[in-house]
Amino acid sequence: MADTTRHERTAHQLRMLSESLDSGRLGPVRRLVNTLSPAEIGNLLESLPAAKRDVVWGLVDPEDDGEVLLHVDDEVREGLIAAMDADELVAAVEDLDIDDLAELLDDLPDTVIDEVLKSMDRENRDRLEQVLSYPEESAGRLMNPDMVTVRADVTVDVVLRYLRLRGELPESTDHLYVVSRRHQYLGRVALAQLVTNDALTPINRLMDDSQQAIPVETLSDEVARQFSDHDWISAPVVDDNNVLLGRITIDDVVDIIREQADYQVLSAAGVSEDESLFSPVLRAFRGRFLWLSINLATAFLASSVVGRFEATLAEIVALAVLMPIVAGMGGNAGTQVIALMVRGIALGQVSVTHLPALVWKELRIALMNGVLLGLVVAGVTLWWFENTALAVVIFAAMVINLAGAALAGVLVPLGLRRFNIDPAVAGGVILTTVTDVVGFGVFLGLASLFLLS
Amino acid sequence: MADTTRHERTAHQLRMLSESLDSGRLGPVRRLVNTLSPAEIGNLLESLPAAKRDVVWGLVDPEDDGEVLLHVDDEVREGLIAAMDADELVAAVEDLDIDDLAELLDDLPDTVIDEVLKSMDRENRDRLEQVLSYPEESAGRLMNPDMVTVRADVTVDVVLRYLRLRGELPESTDHLYVVSRRHQYLGRVALAQLVTNDALTPINRLMDDSQQAIPVETLSDEVARQFSDHDWISAPVVDDNNVLLGRITIDDVVDIIREQADYQVLSAAGVSEDESLFSPVLRAFRGRFLWLSINLATAFLASSVVGRFEATLAEIVALAVLMPIVAGMGGNAGTQVIALMVRGIALGQVSVTHLPALVWKELRIALMNGVLLGLVVAGVTLWWFENTALAVVIFAAMVINLAGAALAGVLVPLGLRRFNIDPAVAGGVILTTVTDVVGFGVFLGLASLFLLS
Repeated sequence: MADTTRHERTAHQLRMLSESLDSGRLGPVRRLVNTLSPAEIGNLLESLPAAKRDVVWGLVDPEDDGEVLLHVDDEVREGLIAAMDADELVAAVEDLDIDDLAELLDDLPDTVIDEVLKSMDRENRDRLEQVLSYPEESAGRLMNPDMVTVRADVTVDVVLRYLRLRGELPESTDHLYVVSRRHQYLGRVALAQLVTNDALTPINRLMDDSQQAIPVETLSDEVARQFSDHDWISAPVVDDNNVLLGRITIDDVVDIIREQADYQVLSAAGVSEDESLFSPVLRAFRGRFLWLSINLATAFLASSVVGRFEATLAEIVALAVLMPIVAGMGGNAGTQVIALMVRGIALGQVSVTHLPALVWKELRIALMNGVLLGLVVAGVTLWWFENTALAVVIFAAMVINLAGAALAGVLVPLGLRRFNIDPAVAGGVILTTVTDVVGFGVFLGLASLFLLS
Repeated sequence: MADTTRHERTAHQLRMLSESLDSGRLGPVRRLVNTLSPAEIGNLLESLPAAKRDVVWGLVDPEDDGEVLLHVDDEVREGLIAAMDADELVAAVEDLDIDDLAELLDDLPDTVIDEVLKSMDRENRDRLEQVLSYPEESAGRLMNPDMVTVRADVTVDVVLRYLRLRGELPESTDHLYVVSRRHQYLGRVALAQLVTNDALTPINRLMDDSQQAIPVETLSDEVARQFSDHDWISAPVVDDNNVLLGRITIDDVVDIIREQADYQVLSAAGVSEDESLFSPVLRAFRGRFLWLSINLATAFLASSVVGRFEATLAEIVALAVLMPIVAGMGGNAGTQVIALMVRGIALGQVSVTHLPALVWKELRIALMNGVLLGLVVAGVTLWWFENTALAVVIFAAMVINLAGAALAGVLVPLGLRRFNIDPAVAGGVILTTVTDVVGFGVFLGLASLFLLS
């Protein structure tokens, strides 16, 4: 899946850009920057240390400023906004679409918000306020109230004449929405239908009423799932009375999917999704310290288990050498199970009905791995320490810990789900705590029982 | 980011379905299944153990069979195909779009492929062969040759008349492509332009030539990036001579982005992206065993470091109790760094130019974490073992190992990249090997130097 071409090209651009910046020749930098799309400029800004970032930001065509602000993470955005004065900010954001403006608004200084609101006409101000009245991460926040609606009883010809009068359509318009007199959503008509059907065809003959509208309070994750399950490009959003409020387009959905993926990867590693490559040191430190502290507490828990066997360890030092293997392999095996479970839960594929089947499957895999890897470890132990009883003990501990890891791998994410804790975040720490405690405890416990003279 | 509603709803459906299956009442199951979209049916099939999966598959409306096969992972697909006879398969796939058919073809039995090819007309067979001639994971494989092209010198009116004659447009058609007489790509015209402009406007006045066509050999990752950087819904694909070959649509791109995310999460945990919840035990075992074996080898490496200090451990058992903390915290801190780096590399944001700035930033964070967490660990050690020298040694080991983890976290992914190894897969194992070796080595080494009587 590696993408060498792109990596090389971007790395090359970055190097050229950095050299130009270092030498103070801003002309080539400006030219390069303004060949990029707003998303690419955003990506570039995120990749630069703060000082260089500010220089490059000053070179971006003011016309692109608003779009670029939409394409950087919260932290970089704050910095960029801080570097602009009120007039620049107003100019940058006043032409944005309502949904995009709503996304930025929280980050703008109050004076700028006032200016922007004043510069808008009544209708757009009302629309903006409506979008802002919905909770973040909901369909209401994602939707754009700007769309084209038609009535069911007119003909293609009438619609085409109306569209010619209207001029430009909102971005990514692939369907017009058919509404009742009270603006309730009835169905949609594809532009493709308008251009392939006879001018006298009535709209209600072309209308597709099979696509359900999205209720305005739907969570954005669910919106994303519906889009990818149905291959939608846009979808209507309605309130409780089925009144059409706006439309969501696929480009916003692609952003959600990317953010979900980011969140999953970073949060499992204990990094905030807002942290970027060149986050300020203090801020990055704070976020990471919290996570490491939680891990430290669990590490002490595991240590305390080891501490209960000090006498045994004092007598057989080989146990200290081998115990990280037992605990570590349990952690690795459990991580495999938890990764599968987290994906299954995210896709809605895990149900309690199939729990016994899942546990049984994972236990069988764990036994196979436990016996095979246990034999390898026992063999190495025998060769290294020439102690058969020790080899038998470590074999048994491996089998037991891998079985425990499989059980924990299935049950921990389901348990977390129950308490509404995201298993992608907390699953890993809890799992390794279990495998450490079980691994150290079983290995040293069996050793105390069978090996002490 | 958790999505309770959906989880609960799907879990509820799954439970109902399972109960109906267990009681043998297939009527309700059939009704439920046929209210779902092909993607949802695919998701459902992936969530069932093999025996139940086959029963449900038999209840799916044959008309949906082809689309459902496109929406399950390779492993489940194999099973479903094995459960169908040749006639059913031919019927299921013969109406698929060329790009979708190309995706399935490798998994079909030869006799079925022959049947399908025979049932196609010459033009479609040629198109299919063309798509198949491009490497997997390339734009050529993703594209659909089915699209609408127009000439630059005609008017809107002529195009509209042509479209009415033609009838239905290919799915997700938002633009028509303008080509030269030799079928070279010149630009695109939005359907939105056709319906908002005067009938006598010439196409070349409406044509947008700013969107670059995608070269046919572009890797699919790069295609996905371009789509999300430019908010495209579809894009033209051309050969080396700029001849238009087909178009890629956003729904395929959304699938790529989802697969990338899956791959990243699963491969970091050592699970094959093809493994699903109910993969056959033997197959799952094989994939996971390989990964665990690699981890076992690195675990022995760490153990051998511990083994060099047997004499020290025999004298001071507390070292055995505390050493997992030093090694483990290094692993946790390094994992945070590597997660950020892997994302940065994937986004093309990491360049060697900024390496010193990155290393310096990470070292500072590591020092802050190392000193703070080190003080906590030293305090606990002092309280637990009442040994000041031991507390000082573990403090120093913590600081050094966290600094080492930061260095490894930055350098390991970049080094892997150099050798074209995906850092998302191999980064974690190498990093924890480093932090284990450094953690055990430094802690036990310092202890040997300063604590032995």
